[in-house]
Amino acid sequence: MERNFREMLEARWAAGKFVCVGLDSELERVRKIVGGHLVPDVAIGTFNERIIEATRKVACAYKPNVAFYESLGNTGMKALAFTISTIRNLAPEIPIILDAKRADIGSTNDGYVKAAFDVLDADAITVHPYLGMEAMAPFLQREDKGIFVLCRTSNPGAGEFQDLPVDGKPLYQHVAQNVAEKWNKNGNCGLVVGATYPEEMAKVRAIVGDLPLLIPGIGAQGGDLEATVKAGKDSRGRGMIINSSRGIIFAENPEKEAEALNDQIKSFL
Amino acid sequence: MERNFREMLEARWAAGKFVCVGLDSELERVRKIVGGHLVPDVAIGTFNERIIEATRKVACAYKPNVAFYESLGNTGMKALAFTISTIRNLAPEIPIILDAKRADIGSTNDGYVKAAFDVLDADAITVHPYLGMEAMAPFLQREDKGIFVLCRTSNPGAGEFQDLPVDGKPLYQHVAQNVAEKWNKNGNCGLVVGATYPEEMAKVRAIVGDLPLLIPGIGAQGGDLEATVKAGKDSRGRGMIINSSRGIIFAENPEKEAEALNDQIKSFL
Repeated sequence: MERNFREMLEARWAAGKFVCVGLDSELERVRKIVGGHLVPDVAIGTFNERIIEATRKVACAYKPNVAFYESLGNTGMKALAFTISTIRNLAPEIPIILDAKRADIGSTNDGYVKAAFDVLDADAITVHPYLGMEAMAPFLQREDKGIFVLCRTSNPGAGEFQDLPVDGKPLYQHVAQNVAEKWNKNGNCGLVVGATYPEEMAKVRAIVGDLPLLIPGIGAQGGDLEATVKAGKDSRGRGMIINSSRGIIFAENPEKEAEALNDQIKSFL
Repeated sequence: MERNFREMLEARWAAGKFVCVGLDSELERVRKIVGGHLVPDVAIGTFNERIIEATRKVACAYKPNVAFYESLGNTGMKALAFTISTIRNLAPEIPIILDAKRADIGSTNDGYVKAAFDVLDADAITVHPYLGMEAMAPFLQREDKGIFVLCRTSNPGAGEFQDLPVDGKPLYQHVAQNVAEKWNKNGNCGLVVGATYPEEMAKVRAIVGDLPLLIPGIGAQGGDLEATVKAGKDSRGRGMIINSSRGIIFAENPEKEAEALNDQIKSFL
């Protein structure tokens, strides 16, 4: 089967799935759950497999953050590769967003594109906007993949540059506009907008039409879900990939937690 | 011996070394030199070892770009680890800048910090500014390391966001100012400014005092060396780490090429 990120995403939305399960599977916390006797890649692999089995009915997407895996060197990258192949086996209909926040100049990005899409086999990736569209061509050319550009991030200090006023509106709105109008020629772009800033999200949604938004910041980071859904949904009542990481994967019952979150999202639509 | 990036860098400058050797060791090109029969990690490891031996007398720093290694998966990361330990063995006085262009929010950066400085043992790293200082605390807290923030990059489309006017001056100058005045509390920051934009470099230098500049864009990218040195040198006639990657490592004689570049730089000081 040919995998196409946007088609997979639309199918999940059509089935009423909006929750992105963030696989931020930090070794120390994972070991408290699966047992401290396992070697790191087996511990994380086993843990993620359980989470995927528990959440595959309700997940819109899976999003492993590469930082948690890279921090363990080769054994962590083995766990990441195992996790991605497990998703492809157990839940072949669910797209995999690699939260890697990459971006280099021109041809150097070929290496990151290859690492994310060919070596690791992800369906989408997160990237930084700072180098501009021209530098990001190797990503944008991959029509079958999803490219999520950081726009208004969820962290407390996000505004330092993102809110700087350019021609009467903040920088992040220029990023939103350029991505929607210029970067998205292949229809494969999306934006990362934090749930911790629903007002800014509403402004982004007004600029970008029905562009997909990847939305971190719900759960441990404290974003307001109702305000997020009201601000983030597109003209069809879709358009959102709402991520929860620690709030789901380290919950007493990840299955119930993910389902409860998805039900809540739908109740606010 | 305790390694401290800034002290190592100052020692190299004091010895008249300004050339950063960019280890962008692309497998296909490397194999044409060391032989196509070698497995990837051995091919790249062998190639880099030769380059390090040939250039260690004149190098100010070594800068492997992670994208070239990640693109090969685990075997590439093995080649990168081997390369870094080879530099530490053959040239323990030369600092290693990991060109990784990382940046995530807060605690997630702990993973990237661990990957770069503890797993891979680099002395410095390149990072994106977009998330702001608060997010980058895990990097900035590593006083012994160097943190190079992207400011004005060397690619043709760099201006898309970096040149947007904020309060009468372009965004990249705000990045320069914030890094110099706020991010640099531990004296471990620097900026990445491309040699392809000497006018912008002069503006950055005027803003940041004697902050170290990591300067890509000489050689294959076509930056003007004399204009770069005039614009980039600090008040002491130092302050520059001038990178050449393909121009040195794929030269007929990398040793002569690196020495000629360093001599040229010094002739323009």
